Amino acid sequence: MTDAPGPEPADPLTPADEAIGGFILDGTVKGIPPRARLRLDAIGAQGWNVLAGDLPFPIAVLDAGRLRHNAAWMATFCRLNGLSLCPHGKTTMAPQLFALQRAHGAWGITVATAQQLAVARRFGVRRAIWANQPVGRLAVEAAFDAVADPGFELFVLADSLAVVEGLAAGAARAGLARPLGVLLEVGNQGGRTGARDAASALAVARAIAAAPGLALAGVECFEGLLPDTASVDAMLGTLADVAAEAAAEGLFAGGEVILSAGGTSFFDRVGARLPDAAALGRPVRRVLRSGCSITHDDIGYAQSYARMRSEGALRFPEGDPLPALTVWTMVQSVPEPRLAILTGGKRDIGSDMGQPVPLRHFRPGVHEAPQPFGAFHRIAGMNDQHAHLVGPAEGLLQVGDLVALGIGHPCSTFDRWQVIPLVDEALTVTGAIRTFF
Amino acid sequence: MTDAPGPEPADPLTPADEAIGGFILDGTVKGIPPRARLRLDAIGAQGWNVLAGDLPFPIAVLDAGRLRHNAAWMATFCRLNGLSLCPHGKTTMAPQLFALQRAHGAWGITVATAQQLAVARRFGVRRAIWANQPVGRLAVEAAFDAVADPGFELFVLADSLAVVEGLAAGAARAGLARPLGVLLEVGNQGGRTGARDAASALAVARAIAAAPGLALAGVECFEGLLPDTASVDAMLGTLADVAAEAAAEGLFAGGEVILSAGGTSFFDRVGARLPDAAALGRPVRRVLRSGCSITHDDIGYAQSYARMRSEGALRFPEGDPLPALTVWTMVQSVPEPRLAILTGGKRDIGSDMGQPVPLRHFRPGVHEAPQPFGAFHRIAGMNDQHAHLVGPAEGLLQVGDLVALGIGHPCSTFDRWQVIPLVDEALTVTGAIRTFF
Repeated sequence: MTDAPGPEPADPLTPADEAIGGFILDGTVKGIPPRARLRLDAIGAQGWNVLAGDLPFPIAVLDAGRLRHNAAWMATFCRLNGLSLCPHGKTTMAPQLFALQRAHGAWGITVATAQQLAVARRFGVRRAIWANQPVGRLAVEAAFDAVADPGFELFVLADSLAVVEGLAAGAARAGLARPLGVLLEVGNQGGRTGARDAASALAVARAIAAAPGLALAGVECFEGLLPDTASVDAMLGTLADVAAEAAAEGLFAGGEVILSAGGTSFFDRVGARLPDAAALGRPVRRVLRSGCSITHDDIGYAQSYARMRSEGALRFPEGDPLPALTVWTMVQSVPEPRLAILTGGKRDIGSDMGQPVPLRHFRPGVHEAPQPFGAFHRIAGMNDQHAHLVGPAEGLLQVGDLVALGIGHPCSTFDRWQVIPLVDEALTVTGAIRTFF
Repeated sequence: MTDAPGPEPADPLTPADEAIGGFILDGTVKGIPPRARLRLDAIGAQGWNVLAGDLPFPIAVLDAGRLRHNAAWMATFCRLNGLSLCPHGKTTMAPQLFALQRAHGAWGITVATAQQLAVARRFGVRRAIWANQPVGRLAVEAAFDAVADPGFELFVLADSLAVVEGLAAGAARAGLARPLGVLLEVGNQGGRTGARDAASALAVARAIAAAPGLALAGVECFEGLLPDTASVDAMLGTLADVAAEAAAEGLFAGGEVILSAGGTSFFDRVGARLPDAAALGRPVRRVLRSGCSITHDDIGYAQSYARMRSEGALRFPEGDPLPALTVWTMVQSVPEPRLAILTGGKRDIGSDMGQPVPLRHFRPGVHEAPQPFGAFHRIAGMNDQHAHLVGPAEGLLQVGDLVALGIGHPCSTFDRWQVIPLVDEALTVTGAIRTFF
């Protein structure tokens, strides 16, 4: 439980589990040199460097120092503002990054599916919010299997009487002494899941409170996809109203009431608007679930963070979050003036929140360090295995040059890689993470 | 070498390699029941059925009968029209599907990267077109490592003098007696890779022919992303002109000249327009690379195929290609009239060629078989883990119902799954494929 950056006693990025450390890397694994064959935990000893061309292109890399900085930054932000962090594991699905987040005081890890819950449990997570409605026999069974583990604490969501009925039936089948903690989900008209108004939300809350084997543990919403701060504030207002009414009716189970929200775009508003113990007359734990905070990005979250800083709704730590995930590509063709075709495309980089951004270019044997791009350079589009970089003046880029691409929405780049090298500032490989998508 | 559907002597879909058959499936693998633990090659013996809820949702499934039908259909199409098939492996990255394609007479497997080449070589492929420019030390090295294997035949692309120089330098380093086969790539203005006009293409051809260790083996283009048949015909016209001139200049190495193109949208035009031996005065092998033909789809390729049939530019086999890849989801919330939120989203289904299509719905315990959707049902959008289905009348869908989604561009759905069950028409699991993305 430390907020300070820097190496932990046992570095959480170093694989502690043989399923990760002993994972065999060879040329059939994307991002590994064709002739290599080694254990994942031996990769840091190879002396490989991105700029030296020791890895195939494209190659996604994580800056280990920036990961640590971001984990520490978010921990400090939460401490300064009376918040707990339960970062969404779906972003990275990387147990080593879960461990880094837990080493920096994360209260738990959020998951979205039974498979994600299984990965979290398999690799040492002891508390999870399953931020979804478990529906269907296998999902409900997975939830109660977790409840049956005395060392594990699970919270799931419910937004309808049908979901509560399914969970209650699962509780009856499981026959456990300990109840499953359920968070009531409130939503917004036109949005995703979540009860659409206070009346229907409270009907669900009452059903949870009345169901044997279930415990109403709190109220939750997801504001991350809303268009602006006004709609975020409105959704959090509904959450506060519903939580106050549920408290007044005595629907919550004993212990602290969990109030949770928080993607990575508006976590400042969430922190400012989630009700506190005084408002509820009950002990309260206010939980952010911001998953992308561990890597930040070069597109949307960078903009969100600029807004947060300028509005200053909460107390911010020193320094800024830093983009930690980059994909290095190589120029494979310059078929027209002002057009370069790069190795790497939709198979390697997500574009659901915008095309990646050309950050730096590097000519082996010529440049001493990567060079920034001028303005007017952009990725016009990607195919499965190619990116189209438009803008370079004649001679700026040639076949064999390296180009670093900054990404948006790390979720959709992480899930294209089973292994991602960790690098230092000089782009020397110091380790690697394994993902479980 | 058979074009007929149905079980082969040794079923290529049955894993022959311990790295696939012995792959351990448990709840940490997406698509596997949380409590399961078994070898991949034992999955068909479990009696699991999608409609019985034996698998977690979302679950991608491949209809094994349709895969066989499509493989046979494409083989017959090629035979009827004097074409060879070298399907792009990037689509599926599934050695079992490579084996199915090879069992149906595929001439080779196409790859896009050194990693894909490594997977193909590891699992028994003996001939590949690396339909890309190998650039950088590791990629060039991987190409010549394949040339050094006497049982393997490799062709790579070049579209510039810079690429030829890099390959020639690699040939000199490798010092092999056998040359690397190089296909000259022609492209189109505003397109991707490929020389933009005949003059620059021929300059590259002459450089390949003159380089020790390289052999000009043919001419290639990629028409799959062009907007219409007129631009496809124009690109193939350039290919024909360049090939004729290269033949006239005596630039091709001995043996047959390889002429290749063919995504899955316009392979009829490719088949009709690729020059033949008479046009070139040389033995010619005309090679399609259509990767998505193995699964077809429910969106773009379905439309392309309708166009092909109506134009009838070539001879078509009996029957139609059939969509073989489907993602089954479960309704987890019906938060508003005419809106259902489904398990499964961008993490599970590609949408780069359009949102998935609601095909059928099924209520366990009520419906005897999946029911077709009426018109006006569509997926309005997807988040990482959710799909928004709009249109259902009140009561049509409820929490716990199953919904089958048809997909477009199979590439971007395949790469979201490490394991995909094979099912029969009754949606009972008969096996599984492993992917290597």
